[in-house]
Amino acid sequence: MSLDAIPIHVVNTLPAGPGLTGNAPPLLREISELLLRLLETGETAAIDLSALPLTPADLDWLRDKLGEGEIAVTLQASGESTLNETACSGVWWVTHHNENGAVTSQFIEVAFVPELVKAHPQDVAIGQEYLELMIANL
Amino acid sequence: MSLDAIPIHVVNTLPAGPGLTGNAPPLLREISELLLRLLETGETAAIDLSALPLTPADLDWLRDKLGEGEIAVTLQASGESTLNETACSGVWWVTHHNENGAVTSQFIEVAFVPELVKAHPQDVAIGQEYLELMIANL
Repeated sequence: MSLDAIPIHVVNTLPAGPGLTGNAPPLLREISELLLRLLETGETAAIDLSALPLTPADLDWLRDKLGEGEIAVTLQASGESTLNETACSGVWWVTHHNENGAVTSQFIEVAFVPELVKAHPQDVAIGQEYLELMIANL
Repeated sequence: MSLDAIPIHVVNTLPAGPGLTGNAPPLLREISELLLRLLETGETAAIDLSALPLTPADLDWLRDKLGEGEIAVTLQASGESTLNETACSGVWWVTHHNENGAVTSQFIEVAFVPELVKAHPQDVAIGQEYLELMIANL
């Protein structure tokens, strides 16, 4: 039996495919550690995906692995931001767009609630005063 | 000069219009008090609009008065729920639909973040274990 007849199976533990750099899988490990920290201390974290050497294929792979959750948030500020829960509760995929709809930055936020969704006390106080004024003018 | 010649101006302090019962304006006062309580104690509250004698016109009037905020949340569970920030920060208009898209209940929630948007620690723990399993199988 010659060596040529031995079938070779390539076992690849990292994702392979066009455009994949192998930089995405370590992020899953980091997210897992950030989730543990969130559970243990309540500390939140954000990973700036735009600052990492990730290709569009890497981002697609990562997003596919994290899956889709039940909650989707849109925030209309100077551009639209979307904050989508992933299938991993506590992990949010945050995308910011400019006024023309182009993606300006992407983050993975590890938190019970994304920071941008929370109403700030000073804004609530302003809203309450606005409501009082409205009631006075009814 | 006869009395008939004196023009009468009806001054109505409550909203008037087809279908308006006058039951909606007191809710604005209640919401304002709930906002003060939120700011002072952090205590949240929800008003079940379905349980009150409000007509569709009352609800439209109320929603119009509260205005639209920057944040819109959709939650896909057995039916879709929408949780929309109003122009009064900390006041959320929450609508639950059944699987056929019909509205099943409506609430005004007074909170920094609607309760349903928060990830629960036990779900985060499940997500973290799921992620660990995924990493082990990469």
